[in-house]
Amino acid sequence: MLALKKTQSGAGYLDLVEGSFPVLEGDEVLVKVWSAGICGSDVLIEKDRHFYKAPVTLGHEFSGVIEAVGPDVRTVKVGDRIAADIETRSGWLGVTRNGAFASHMSVPEAQIFVYPETVSLDDICFTEPMVATVHAMEERHTVMSGDFVVVVGPGPMGLLGVQMARFKGAGTIVVIGRKGIDERRLAIAKQVGANHVLYSEDNPEAAIFKLSEGRGADFVLECSATATGFQHGIDCARRSPEGRGGAGKISVISLWGEPITVQPDAISLYQLDLRGSWSWNGPETWRRAVELVQSGSFDFSSVLTGRYALADWRTAFDSFQSCQDCKVFLYPNGADWQS
Amino acid sequence: MLALKKTQSGAGYLDLVEGSFPVLEGDEVLVKVWSAGICGSDVLIEKDRHFYKAPVTLGHEFSGVIEAVGPDVRTVKVGDRIAADIETRSGWLGVTRNGAFASHMSVPEAQIFVYPETVSLDDICFTEPMVATVHAMEERHTVMSGDFVVVVGPGPMGLLGVQMARFKGAGTIVVIGRKGIDERRLAIAKQVGANHVLYSEDNPEAAIFKLSEGRGADFVLECSATATGFQHGIDCARRSPEGRGGAGKISVISLWGEPITVQPDAISLYQLDLRGSWSWNGPETWRRAVELVQSGSFDFSSVLTGRYALADWRTAFDSFQSCQDCKVFLYPNGADWQS
Amino acid sequence: MLALKKTQSGAGYLDLVEGSFPVLEGDEVLVKVWSAGICGSDVLIEKDRHFYKAPVTLGHEFSGVIEAVGPDVRTVKVGDRIAADIETRSGWLGVTRNGAFASHMSVPEAQIFVYPETVSLDDICFTEPMVATVHAMEERHTVMSGDFVVVVGPGPMGLLGVQMARFKGAGTIVVIGRKGIDERRLAIAKQVGANHVLYSEDNPEAAIFKLSEGRGADFVLECSATATGFQHGIDCARRSPEGRGGAGKISVISLWGEPITVQPDAISLYQLDLRGSWSWNGPETWRRAVELVQSGSFDFSSVLTGRYALADWRTAFDSFQSCQDCKVFLYPNGADWQS
Amino acid sequence: MLALKKTQSGAGYLDLVEGSFPVLEGDEVLVKVWSAGICGSDVLIEKDRHFYKAPVTLGHEFSGVIEAVGPDVRTVKVGDRIAADIETRSGWLGVTRNGAFASHMSVPEAQIFVYPETVSLDDICFTEPMVATVHAMEERHTVMSGDFVVVVGPGPMGLLGVQMARFKGAGTIVVIGRKGIDERRLAIAKQVGANHVLYSEDNPEAAIFKLSEGRGADFVLECSATATGFQHGIDCARRSPEGRGGAGKISVISLWGEPITVQPDAISLYQLDLRGSWSWNGPETWRRAVELVQSGSFDFSSVLTGRYALADWRTAFDSFQSCQDCKVFLYPNGADWQS
Repeated sequence: MLALKKTQSGAGYLDLVEGSFPVLEGDEVLVKVWSAGICGSDVLIEKDRHFYKAPVTLGHEFSGVIEAVGPDVRTVKVGDRIAADIETRSGWLGVTRNGAFASHMSVPEAQIFVYPETVSLDDICFTEPMVATVHAMEERHTVMSGDFVVVVGPGPMGLLGVQMARFKGAGTIVVIGRKGIDERRLAIAKQVGANHVLYSEDNPEAAIFKLSEGRGADFVLECSATATGFQHGIDCARRSPEGRGGAGKISVISLWGEPITVQPDAISLYQLDLRGSWSWNGPETWRRAVELVQSGSFDFSSVLTGRYALADWRTAFDSFQSCQDCKVFLYPNGADWQS
Repeated sequence: MLALKKTQSGAGYLDLVEGSFPVLEGDEVLVKVWSAGICGSDVLIEKDRHFYKAPVTLGHEFSGVIEAVGPDVRTVKVGDRIAADIETRSGWLGVTRNGAFASHMSVPEAQIFVYPETVSLDDICFTEPMVATVHAMEERHTVMSGDFVVVVGPGPMGLLGVQMARFKGAGTIVVIGRKGIDERRLAIAKQVGANHVLYSEDNPEAAIFKLSEGRGADFVLECSATATGFQHGIDCARRSPEGRGGAGKISVISLWGEPITVQPDAISLYQLDLRGSWSWNGPETWRRAVELVQSGSFDFSSVLTGRYALADWRTAFDSFQSCQDCKVFLYPNGADWQS
Repeated sequence: MLALKKTQSGAGYLDLVEGSFPVLEGDEVLVKVWSAGICGSDVLIEKDRHFYKAPVTLGHEFSGVIEAVGPDVRTVKVGDRIAADIETRSGWLGVTRNGAFASHMSVPEAQIFVYPETVSLDDICFTEPMVATVHAMEERHTVMSGDFVVVVGPGPMGLLGVQMARFKGAGTIVVIGRKGIDERRLAIAKQVGANHVLYSEDNPEAAIFKLSEGRGADFVLECSATATGFQHGIDCARRSPEGRGGAGKISVISLWGEPITVQPDAISLYQLDLRGSWSWNGPETWRRAVELVQSGSFDFSSVLTGRYALADWRTAFDSFQSCQDCKVFLYPNGADWQS
Repeated sequence: MLALKKTQSGAGYLDLVEGSFPVLEGDEVLVKVWSAGICGSDVLIEKDRHFYKAPVTLGHEFSGVIEAVGPDVRTVKVGDRIAADIETRSGWLGVTRNGAFASHMSVPEAQIFVYPETVSLDDICFTEPMVATVHAMEERHTVMSGDFVVVVGPGPMGLLGVQMARFKGAGTIVVIGRKGIDERRLAIAKQVGANHVLYSEDNPEAAIFKLSEGRGADFVLECSATATGFQHGIDCARRSPEGRGGAGKISVISLWGEPITVQPDAISLYQLDLRGSWSWNGPETWRRAVELVQSGSFDFSSVLTGRYALADWRTAFDSFQSCQDCKVFLYPNGADWQS
């Protein structure tokens, strides 16, 4: 079985190699992988800037169909269409335990969420990114109805963030991107619910204060992973220099991977609330995300711009990193064996 | 009447000049100023990096004695020893309305807090700094009993922060300062309650994780106003990469006044909560601070290292800025007419 | 001009009497009332169990069309279709200042929200109830995606609550009502989004724990105004006897008007969070509600079961109180002069 | 070894009987019990109104000295003076696993907190009650400096609550008790920090609003376990009918054990925040409590009014229930073998 593996520690060492077929524990199931998304952390693992345990098959955003079950499995069955919480007793799937960049993987029964037939396997594969979105926009900070929301960075997380803001009843949603680089992604942003897209180069703060009649952004999702983006976030957030403070809520999910230069005085002076968001709050968050994926209220297909065979993983990774594509999926078993 | 005034807009323009004696409205009182503290924002006003309205007598941290009252004043009387909320209907005292760097000032009755005879006028002059401390350490974020607290920057706010942490029942309190520059202030930190003082240059994060048995700082007061200090704050805060997040609370009161270079990944990855703190939450915060000043639980005299005549304001400002002194008070009427 | 007035203090004294036509201040507008809802607090004012200032024209939930503007009015104009924040400088509209149970009323410009032509005047009249809903379900406590929500009491507030829960992405919504009395309202509940309706008499707690696989209700909206309803609320809420607590959120908007008998041990033992909700958080809440009314996501017409002429006010009040009707509007100018 | 046991299910069945001497697991220690407090839940277990697992030796508030250690114990040693978290892998000490109402007990090493010699064994025995106090007054709701605090019910928890409020910098502390019944406890309340004690029978709400200049109680600790007490709590809490709400914080730790009759309208109308508090938030809370017990800032000896031999358990229980005593300890090994 071919598997895209981080073969050893260090920068690089990402290769499509022969991997052993999963052997099931009694309470595990064999999943035939439908699709597996490339995440920013996969890129960081390649660069050796994220934790992992080599050798390991990457791929922690996935959907698939159960092909076999261990003798102790009780609640799921062959044929079920599933996503799964990646925290298992023996490691994180696709990070420290073999994941989904291969034709098959094993998953403990307790992690599995079964979806109805009505949800496509491509949509199911957005479960993990939606977990991160729920955590950043409901659990760590909460978008409220009527909020003026700014999303800095129109990557996959930004485009899900736009939809989450829309779903939660945001009043106005603005996305900030870069001229040239982010054109395609900004076009998708408008398509999935942004009221306005602004260029990072054109003083977006001024536009935001004007659009919000001086109020600024009640809620900022900072997912630019750039210094300029971080600065936009703190500069456009709603200010409460007096009183209780905290009128400007900033959910920070960027990883920069290197030092950045910013002017942070607005944090103090305008009493901003920055909350970092990473991962999720246990099964609680997964449950919420599954509910949202099932709701049919999200347009995942517009975000999914790149569909690649596993053999084309290098092209897929490069296209994701260059921002030519938005969300990119690999299909280890092809894309013609299920609907 | 001589008054230390910001005489006009722009950098500089801070001078001891002749000012007009206050004329009272019906509901105002005439305060004979005992002392008036030099605040970081006074320094920023001199440099034209903070809001103000010139010409204006500076001085917004003050204590004094009521010398006369307007005809409509009902609740306070001549001889009362007072501090006052600086937000008046006609501006902020010492910022946009004439303040305390002069022998006398006028204050509306509604702003005034009367202290009992048992509290010294020097201690009363710490009311405004205590307001900022309460806001940063109870209202914006809350120190809890047993917390491992790190104070980055042993300036006046840092030294009050140490005492506030001690007062709230913190378990261990660590202060980070700079070799050479902060020696005097670090010595005071130990005197007023710090369990440990660490040098910024000696990898204080490692020491903090060791002292806290791997937990890191539950609460960080960031008042260093340096890039290195900000980095210490986010690097030593308690990490919660999984779960609910927010285990590391950082109250940010620094103003840097210029861009800084930092590596902020820990904010996202460890799900930190940064809350900027500035000013106060209306009279509510003043009420709390007055209670604390009266409690007798704070050692203000150790923090007050510099006592200067108004005429020596330049020396006082310089000594404050060079960190030779810690808290610095000016005494426009001398320091021998009250106890 | 006929006006439905609380004519003097005491129980009763609600009458349709001749009232004086509004005289405008310079910054006020003359509103021709379209409809005005009967609220539970109008009933309480009749019974002398709510604050008010007699004599006063009741009616604080309203929509209308601007018919004239004072000389200082700048931002709204004749013909605008409006709702309004009821807190004016000279009293609460319909409570301590003349309200909407009359053909015309005056409203200060600053309180007004102008709606686009696309929103019907009946829907606009739901602005004030939506303000209360936003406050109870987003501001005081927050419904989150995937939450198991229980609404106790299918009155107008309960039926808006069902829709708000659905709007915020609740997983399952259960409504508890009384056999016989609430049949019509329970039928509407299902129509506007409830997944299940349960009878108060049939041990709804057991059903709720079963439906939620033992979890109980993450969020309860308590709007039953009965002792039994309050008991249901605390008995079906999610329990967290250990740990951080607060897993069961109960937003309480009932007014009982008399003592009730309940067994409250679950509050302590299961660490429930009860938050009373009343009114709103200033213009902020109104802004959110206006956004939601405009969103088109709420089915107000199913909740509006009773449309009465002002002359039929007694019948309207009685039908509301007997729970035969759900939301009841009075139309002081008839219902045929606008769409 | 004699042990005070709940011998079987049902009301009653509390007896001093022969129990087997503890046998240690490898990671457990043998504790010679110094003292063990009688808690309200012990009384409820006798009455069969609290969970437990019979037969079981009761006693979950305790201090003692380590007399022997299992072979795998590494971090504590014979002679250590200790308290312990009661949640073990095989049950709650004194509730579902044998506890401290006997000369000896076994405790897993991981639960143990070792105190320095400077803390008396009687004080150490207050660790568990302090855990509940920290949870109710810092974690579930937080007392802030300057708060006007009302404690309803001057039992052991109320008297620790008074001290906790004082410790956290409360401005004014009022305790409400019953005439006759609570006289001794009210006297202690004044001794340990209450500014005022009020009788439940004398309209304490009026006095509280007067003492607080109309503000009401910022924080209420409800530990009366009476209907009247609960009513006092919601009636004296600070009101915020408008705005954000939540100005009145009520921490509810009472268990009533039966239905009560109350008028709850104030919860809704004044937007109160009631949070039930029970147990603790894992080891985090224990760590905080141990810190506070060690701080020397609490006067536990005034609260400890009854010291009884184990053989006199019936008298001790009766004296506790009749409110003649406040905190009551049993000493299974006498009280003369340690300081």
